[in-house]
Parts: sequence; structure tokens; C-alpha cells
Amino acid sequence: MNRYWSSVVHTLTPYVPGEQPKQTDLIKLNTNENPYPPSPRALRAMAAEATDTLRLYPDPNAERLKQAIADLHGLTPGQVFVGNGSDEVLAHTFLALLKHESPLLFPDISYSFYPVYCGLYAIAFKQVPLTERFEIDPADYRVANGGIIFPNPNAPTGRLLPLTAIETILNDNPQSVVVVDEAYIDFGGESAIALVARYPNLLVIQTLSKSRSLAGLRVGFAVGNAELIEALERVKNSFNSYPLDRFAISGAVAAIEDREYFEQTCNRIIRSRQRLSQRLLELGFQVLPSAANFLFVRHPGRDAAELSRLLREQSIIVRHFRLPRIEQFLRITIGTEVQGDQLCQALEQILG
Amino acid sequence: MNRYWSSVVHTLTPYVPGEQPKQTDLIKLNTNENPYPPSPRALRAMAAEATDTLRLYPDPNAERLKQAIADLHGLTPGQVFVGNGSDEVLAHTFLALLKHESPLLFPDISYSFYPVYCGLYAIAFKQVPLTERFEIDPADYRVANGGIIFPNPNAPTGRLLPLTAIETILNDNPQSVVVVDEAYIDFGGESAIALVARYPNLLVIQTLSKSRSLAGLRVGFAVGNAELIEALERVKNSFNSYPLDRFAISGAVAAIEDREYFEQTCNRIIRSRQRLSQRLLELGFQVLPSAANFLFVRHPGRDAAELSRLLREQSIIVRHFRLPRIEQFLRITIGTEVQGDQLCQALEQILG
Repeated sequence: MNRYWSSVVHTLTPYVPGEQPKQTDLIKLNTNENPYPPSPRALRAMAAEATDTLRLYPDPNAERLKQAIADLHGLTPGQVFVGNGSDEVLAHTFLALLKHESPLLFPDISYSFYPVYCGLYAIAFKQVPLTERFEIDPADYRVANGGIIFPNPNAPTGRLLPLTAIETILNDNPQSVVVVDEAYIDFGGESAIALVARYPNLLVIQTLSKSRSLAGLRVGFAVGNAELIEALERVKNSFNSYPLDRFAISGAVAAIEDREYFEQTCNRIIRSRQRLSQRLLELGFQVLPSAANFLFVRHPGRDAAELSRLLREQSIIVRHFRLPRIEQFLRITIGTEVQGDQLCQALEQILG
Repeated sequence: MNRYWSSVVHTLTPYVPGEQPKQTDLIKLNTNENPYPPSPRALRAMAAEATDTLRLYPDPNAERLKQAIADLHGLTPGQVFVGNGSDEVLAHTFLALLKHESPLLFPDISYSFYPVYCGLYAIAFKQVPLTERFEIDPADYRVANGGIIFPNPNAPTGRLLPLTAIETILNDNPQSVVVVDEAYIDFGGESAIALVARYPNLLVIQTLSKSRSLAGLRVGFAVGNAELIEALERVKNSFNSYPLDRFAISGAVAAIEDREYFEQTCNRIIRSRQRLSQRLLELGFQVLPSAANFLFVRHPGRDAAELSRLLREQSIIVRHFRLPRIEQFLRITIGTEVQGDQLCQALEQILG
């Protein structure tokens, strides 16, 4: 508490990201990073930016990047917004499109940054419980609201909502913006971007941190009707003109253009997920169906916090959330095949 | 106007940054970029980041960078906040420390982003007129307020306020945060960082965009009492965990550590400013005293908008603000010696 702080600061409970340990010999399966390096084309494009032109501001509108994203998805650049990671895109979305008199709706088990944004911008919200099987039921979103947001696949469950269910939510809520947060969509889901042309109230957010192996670069984007994008641009241009530096713009363009590398690495992760899922089932775990680059699992015989601690002793970090309904679950990022083997060996030993 | 927009979006008048033309053969004296490249050590450090580790998130606390800034200024890392350019640092400062019941004070002629932040966060403000000589008079800030912010040297005037005057403002306003925005301080001013230990209400903001030739990288920072920094951290961690990517952290650390290169390039710009100032006086311009990397000038016989247009025809871009009191001024960035010569030749021809 401090007399110089604005009143909002006293009430904030900031988001706590997964640990980024300094120790480099750990098997890091806690923050859903991609185990494979970024596209070699992206690495070359970024290396080429380490030059004299860094003295100049980047393009504040990142037009090259908007065009590359538009080309990838059959859109126009006016339907694309870019930001410093999908977290910044989400922050602007909460202020520009989700702050209304009626409460914002999102699942009770979901990305834990959502209630933090609501705290930052004084947005009323209501958490809608997932079903017992940790699924989103569109019928639960047929209530008065000032907006709807959910990750798809959901985090940290990994469960995918099919496009038909998303259309039900969109049709039931024509007065509200519906935000589909697709951080993990490239690992087995169908993107709602296909619906953007038909629903003026749909905003889809994606990131280059996961499927394009660029968590260290900070690039995310939103696509939707040009009027929704205009609201985001107004807020962004009232906050920071240049959130993407020259490396981020060039690296992101090259990564998006290298579709072949992208598909190869996504497919490898999908195969590894299937294999790891099977082995964890054999070890007695309950494994939720996942369309993401992680598995959400529980072991009926062992406390999740203890399992997490014992794995850490063997230099393996996974994510454990001390939250209602999911405190007995672990979220495990899909690493390389070798990392999956090391994880299973450690678990075999722990479970004895 | 759109039914999906939050009410704040309808009221925003976003900031308009200086033009970043695609044409590369222009003499670009409009956005106060440094004419010299970044430190070679910084370029090497950034090139080394274009590697596989980009798949991993950056350090959300950018501890290496906070330590480097602390070491440079004899502070502790807990007195340092870092962000995506000083614009993002300013945005968080407005929300965390300058939003109170009484109005925020800033000069009528100042960084034109300040009223935009106030619009974004619904902050009441009052603009305090500069004196007739475009100076800040500390006595004008002896009124009830919820905070005070001004650039020093001021922008776009370039005029410097001495530390003794800043101390007067700090002593007169112990109940308010006083923010000194030092984007241009390295070109001839004395930093208020020297006062941080003695004034718990002082926050000093700097950027690496100007004096360290890294506008394309997006790094800024604030220093102040640890409790002020804590407020900024809370807001930042409720907005975006990782605003600085791996290139930004490494490049900024190396640029800050390379003090010799920094001093050389700053001194070159100061010498060029003196030379250009003299020549513009000889051409009949009125030139405000500048401690920045730009000059703020007017010609008694020629309209500023027309001069700007005629320079543009000769491929030279300068900045002209259509704002009260300064619409007959031009802001001219200090470029290389050669660019200064080209500017003067063009002006000689125009003024005939």
C-alpha cells in the first residue's frame, strides 16, 4: 500500500507465468513451449535485422506482417491486428471489446489471465462452470452478457470445442463479441477463422509462441471483422505505437511463410502426444482428450502436487495449478520423443 | 461507431507517430532517430539471439537488463522497471501512478501522447502553459494536482529545465508523483536520476531509442523508489508478462554496457547540433536553445507548413505540428554532418 499508487493498483492480483528457470539442464515441460527450433527461414530473417537500420523505428502498423497473415488465411490486412504476443492482443481486446455493462462470460477452468485483465480494466465477469467432463456446453452461454471469451482448445484442459458448437454460441449471442483464443489450435483443431466472414461478432486470437516456436519473440494476432479490428487499433495507438520491433516483424513474416516447416513440426508434436498419451494411460493416469501441445492428466493414486515435486527432483518441470476442481491434475507439455521417454521413465520409477 | 465497441473506444483520439516512409532515399529528420548505428557490441549480441532458444519464453522480469541499468546509475534492480519502449513505460505509469481524483498537470506544449494516455485511462488533466519563452516555470505547478509529468528536455521545444528547478517542483508537491520523461536527456542535460534516492515521489523515464540508436528494438525504462516501481510491475504483470523479447533484452544490455560508443555518438550529435544551430541562425531562423537531438526553429519570413512542404520536395522530411502556439515552428532532427549540410543547402535555395 502506498499513497502514490492509483486505486486500481491496490486491487490487482497479477498473473503469474510458468517458471522460467535459469538452470538449463532441466526437462522443461511447464510452459507449453515447442521442443523444436523456429523455422530456419525465420532465423535467417531475424539475423539479417541485427544491423544499422535498428536505429530507425519499425513500421508502427507492421503492414508486412498483416499482409502475411491475411495471405495465409484468405483475409484482407484490415481484418488483422498484431501485437506483442497474444497476451498484449488479449489485453487490448478486453479493454476495446469486452468491457460493457453486462458481465463478460468465460469458463471457470480457463486461461488464468482472463480474470486478471478484468481486474485491470474493471470489467464485470461471470465464470461459467465446465461440465463434469471439463467441456464447454454452448447452452450455458445463453444468458445476458457483455461478451464471451474462451480458449479453444481450452487451457489447461486441452479439450477442443468443435466449430459447430462455436457457431451455436455465435448465433445465440449476436449482440456480444465472442472471442476464441486459439493459442493451441494448430495442434489438432479447426480454426474459427473460417467463420470470420460470416460472423461480425467473432474475434479469433492466435500466437506464434507455440506452433511456430517463437515464444522468445513475442508475436500474436487477432482476426475478425474490420470494425472489431479498428477498435483494437484505436486502443493500441493510444497505448504504444510500435509494440513489435524489427526482429519480431521480420521473424514472424518468415515463420508464417514457411508453411512446410510449420506443418512438419506440428505433425511431430501430434504424433508425440498420441504416443505419450498412450503410455500415461498404461501408467494408470486419467488423460483428458487433447488437441493442444500438452496433456492434462491425473493419477487416481497419487497427489498431483507430490508428483510434481518428485518429477522436479528428477529435473523435470511440469505445471500444477492450485485451483478448485483441477488441483489433482498436472499439465504436461509435449516435448521431443526423447523427453517423453525420460518423463515416462521418471514416472515409472516414482509410481514404483 | 460500432455496437461491439467498449464506450472508451468511441472517445479515443489515438496518437499519430511521425511518418515512417517506405522510400529509403529520403533525408529523414522527422522522428528524432539517431543518425549513427547502434553499438557494434549490441549488434553482435542481438545477432547471437537468432537461434534455437527463441522457442523459449524470455525472462519475464528481464533481470539482466534491470541489473545493467542499475549498475549504470548506481541503483538496485528493485529501483528499475523496463518496458517495450518508453511509450509502454509511460502508458503503465499513467495508469499505475498518475490516475487520481485531482487532475494531472503537464505543459501545454509537450509530448502529444500525454493527453492520449489520459483519454485511454479516463485521467483528468490540466495543461499548464509554458512561459512566453517556452520554458517550464516551477511556480506554475503549485496548484492542487494528482500528479505532474513533463519531458526534460521538453519536446518538441528542446528546452532543458535545470535540476534545481526540478527539485523545486518535487519539494512543492510531496503528495504527488512527479515524472520526468528524459527521452532526450543524454544529448546535453543532467539526469534527475541523481535525485531518485532523495525523493520518493520522483519517477524518471528514459529510452534506448534515441541516444542508443535502438528505435527499432523497443526498449525503455523507469527508475524510482522501489514502491513506485512495484506499482508499475503490478500493472505490467496484469497486462503482458513478457513485453521484451530475447533480442530486446540482449541488445539493450550490450548497448548499456558499451559506454564508450554511447559517449562518442552523443558527443558527435551535440557538436552537429551546435553547428547546425549556428547555420540556421545565419539563415535568419529563430532557434530555441536545445539540449536534445533536434532543433525547434521558426523563420519570421516563411510559413512553417510551406517550408516543410518545400523541404519534402527536396527529399528532406522534418516534423511540423499543427498545434496552437507552435504552428509556425519546425522540429528538425540532428542527423549526420552531411545531412546537416544538405538541409542547409536546401534551405538556402528555398529562402533564396
